[in-house]
Amino acid sequence: MNWTRHDLLDLQELSREEIEMILETAKSFKEVGTRDIKKVPALRGKTVVMLFFENSTRTRTSFELAAKRLSADTMNIAASGSSLSKGETTLDTALNIEAMNVDGIVIRHGSSGIPHYLAQHLSASVINAGDGCRSHPTQALLDMYTILEKKKKIEGLKVAIVGDIAHSRVARSNIIGLTKLGAEVTVCGPSTLMPPGIETTGAKVSYDLDSIIPESDVIMMLRIQMERQEQKFLPSIREYAIKFGLNSNRLKKAKKDVLIMHPGPTNRGVEISAEVADGEHSVILDQVTNGVAVRMA
Amino acid sequence: MNWTRHDLLDLQELSREEIEMILETAKSFKEVGTRDIKKVPALRGKTVVMLFFENSTRTRTSFELAAKRLSADTMNIAASGSSLSKGETTLDTALNIEAMNVDGIVIRHGSSGIPHYLAQHLSASVINAGDGCRSHPTQALLDMYTILEKKKKIEGLKVAIVGDIAHSRVARSNIIGLTKLGAEVTVCGPSTLMPPGIETTGAKVSYDLDSIIPESDVIMMLRIQMERQEQKFLPSIREYAIKFGLNSNRLKKAKKDVLIMHPGPTNRGVEISAEVADGEHSVILDQVTNGVAVRMA
Amino acid sequence: MNWTRHDLLDLQELSREEIEMILETAKSFKEVGTRDIKKVPALRGKTVVMLFFENSTRTRTSFELAAKRLSADTMNIAASGSSLSKGETTLDTALNIEAMNVDGIVIRHGSSGIPHYLAQHLSASVINAGDGCRSHPTQALLDMYTILEKKKKIEGLKVAIVGDIAHSRVARSNIIGLTKLGAEVTVCGPSTLMPPGIETTGAKVSYDLDSIIPESDVIMMLRIQMERQEQKFLPSIREYAIKFGLNSNRLKKAKKDVLIMHPGPTNRGVEISAEVADGEHSVILDQVTNGVAVRMA
Repeated sequence: MNWTRHDLLDLQELSREEIEMILETAKSFKEVGTRDIKKVPALRGKTVVMLFFENSTRTRTSFELAAKRLSADTMNIAASGSSLSKGETTLDTALNIEAMNVDGIVIRHGSSGIPHYLAQHLSASVINAGDGCRSHPTQALLDMYTILEKKKKIEGLKVAIVGDIAHSRVARSNIIGLTKLGAEVTVCGPSTLMPPGIETTGAKVSYDLDSIIPESDVIMMLRIQMERQEQKFLPSIREYAIKFGLNSNRLKKAKKDVLIMHPGPTNRGVEISAEVADGEHSVILDQVTNGVAVRMA
Repeated sequence: MNWTRHDLLDLQELSREEIEMILETAKSFKEVGTRDIKKVPALRGKTVVMLFFENSTRTRTSFELAAKRLSADTMNIAASGSSLSKGETTLDTALNIEAMNVDGIVIRHGSSGIPHYLAQHLSASVINAGDGCRSHPTQALLDMYTILEKKKKIEGLKVAIVGDIAHSRVARSNIIGLTKLGAEVTVCGPSTLMPPGIETTGAKVSYDLDSIIPESDVIMMLRIQMERQEQKFLPSIREYAIKFGLNSNRLKKAKKDVLIMHPGPTNRGVEISAEVADGEHSVILDQVTNGVAVRMA
Repeated sequence: MNWTRHDLLDLQELSREEIEMILETAKSFKEVGTRDIKKVPALRGKTVVMLFFENSTRTRTSFELAAKRLSADTMNIAASGSSLSKGETTLDTALNIEAMNVDGIVIRHGSSGIPHYLAQHLSASVINAGDGCRSHPTQALLDMYTILEKKKKIEGLKVAIVGDIAHSRVARSNIIGLTKLGAEVTVCGPSTLMPPGIETTGAKVSYDLDSIIPESDVIMMLRIQMERQEQKFLPSIREYAIKFGLNSNRLKKAKKDVLIMHPGPTNRGVEISAEVADGEHSVILDQVTNGVAVRMA
């Protein structure tokens, strides 16, 4: 099978075989990260631009390292330092960047659909590094890679995704990807943070964390965004932590080999307690390591 | 002919032959941008610092790409992140950078003459990426390159430059360069935005856009800076757009093969309408592509 | 002798032999900075991250150039652009960076001891680029390198360090390093800026600049931080300049071959006059040049 796609916008558009191909490729690149000389010449002489309209050190750094290890030249453009402040449109900015013969554009934007829109107008490859509440395909891919690495399979696993499902691009991309690979996904959170029509994605819905913990093979905790509270989606942070926070007491009821995941950065004491985040079941830092390999792929 | 100059500060100081030599070199570098491996080793092991006291993603990115494709190491220093906030002078900053054995310094500064001042005190090569209202030689060079590419010659062409002539370093550098290469330049704009003594540059002056459109081979629209309006240089933006904005209606009276240029970023609906900016005569994105090649040269 | 240390946190922990080994290595790297191709392959394929929680163009640029000339890939992470604003701890940030298989982390932080704390938890090499008021080992190493280069020895020299001794990590690191190499250090400044217990470091104390100038081989002026004045540590800036500022009049009483040093950026007219900073005895820009070589080492 050969890779024929030009952009990476959403897991929706990828077939199961394509997702598996990316995860397979990431496996060989992961080895590169452990070498003494962490370089392969795959993208030598290519230019990759990181166009970040939202701030994210973690994701940007991961992509930048991935591109550099593939020997590409990289450039960072942040919205604050860009001509956007001079009133240019996003497409204008992207067209101008592409006009410099750029080969790839990694984009993060606060509005859903912007990467898709740009991909239609650009001949450079567009990689979606998160758009609005819609999707974050490389995060989901690295989560799947991490599960596959630890559990040796995804097919048939029970995966719980816990937190603010409505506003999470990570949740949406993981539901799509994990379901395609045969996992059974259950989303869990307060009803105010559950999007309407979530059942149509194939995910089961629960409002009671304690009832789903015993049967889950993987528990993926989402970051709670403090600013949501002001928008009245959330009861108090304290109440949220009591009902939906993962702590060592709650974890006692889980399977012995459960995986605890979090896309980072964690709010320790809110959605996850410090002992659990740093505990034996946690693969949070493995997720970060695998991120570079998956983004190289 | 060999290149003997050490700095690139202003087109005033270059002979016609030197300008032609840069444009010729850019032509061969333009081909590099279309290759699969966009690298030539010309500056391998050299260090080029972008020292930007004014924000300009477009110009900085273009220079940075140019330097990387020539295999130089690049570093960005923005005024906000520099020791300037600790009260150091511009010369101090530059001397400190040079003391690290830097080979080239690309500088943009809000005050006219700063690059010339630095060039007198530094042994590194200084490239002026725009200083105050005075000059922006690489922008003019890429404009000339684009005209030459599309029209096959510059000698004898009629070029109109339209907008805020008084505050435009782009206009000033283009008048000098285009006149040296034998074009006939007419500047056009409201009288409040026309600098005193402009006739001494060799450019003709017009206050009526409609009268000069029919005879022009190239129309170069300048960006209107909204903040000028507060300084009472401009009538209302709406009135400006009516009298000096380029729209498709006005363009009907132009030559069939007219070139429409703009240094970017455009204020669509003000100095140029969206249809014209994206229309068949527009070479605005060609200007950006050529920018990298010219800056490599 | 082989280099066995993994981190560079403080000069306290280095033996005299280890300091001499760094200075010797820097000597060979200094030559690289004068070559046409300023590159050696020592760190090819390695990744070095600059993690700056305090702004310092000068130090960051020097480290970045050093890493690039050693062929490492470099990445900049500034506190303002980092996930810190999302409430992550410093250790979390560093662990996440390291999880991407980073080889070295150069850190500057406003709190003393943070680099030591991180070094205990990370397997990547940690280099302290300044922490709080505690230490700035690479600055002290480059100062020692510069003295050695100009004076051919450090043993037996009389070195005066003048200014805000209490809040200076540069002073503290230099006292430790110079004393280890056999110099006799005298610190000088107003009593309000002299830390309690300074005598235990082996340095002599003086409150009268004029009395120590005639006997000093090296005079190292420290930067006065204007904000200290509000904290009532300082008399007026004017009074400070009169009592502790180095000007050409005062310099007349100095040895003919005295070295004048300053870690930069200078407050001209406060702790050092412009004539002295730019004068024949000044090695301030040599310090900057040597910084790159020492940081490569």
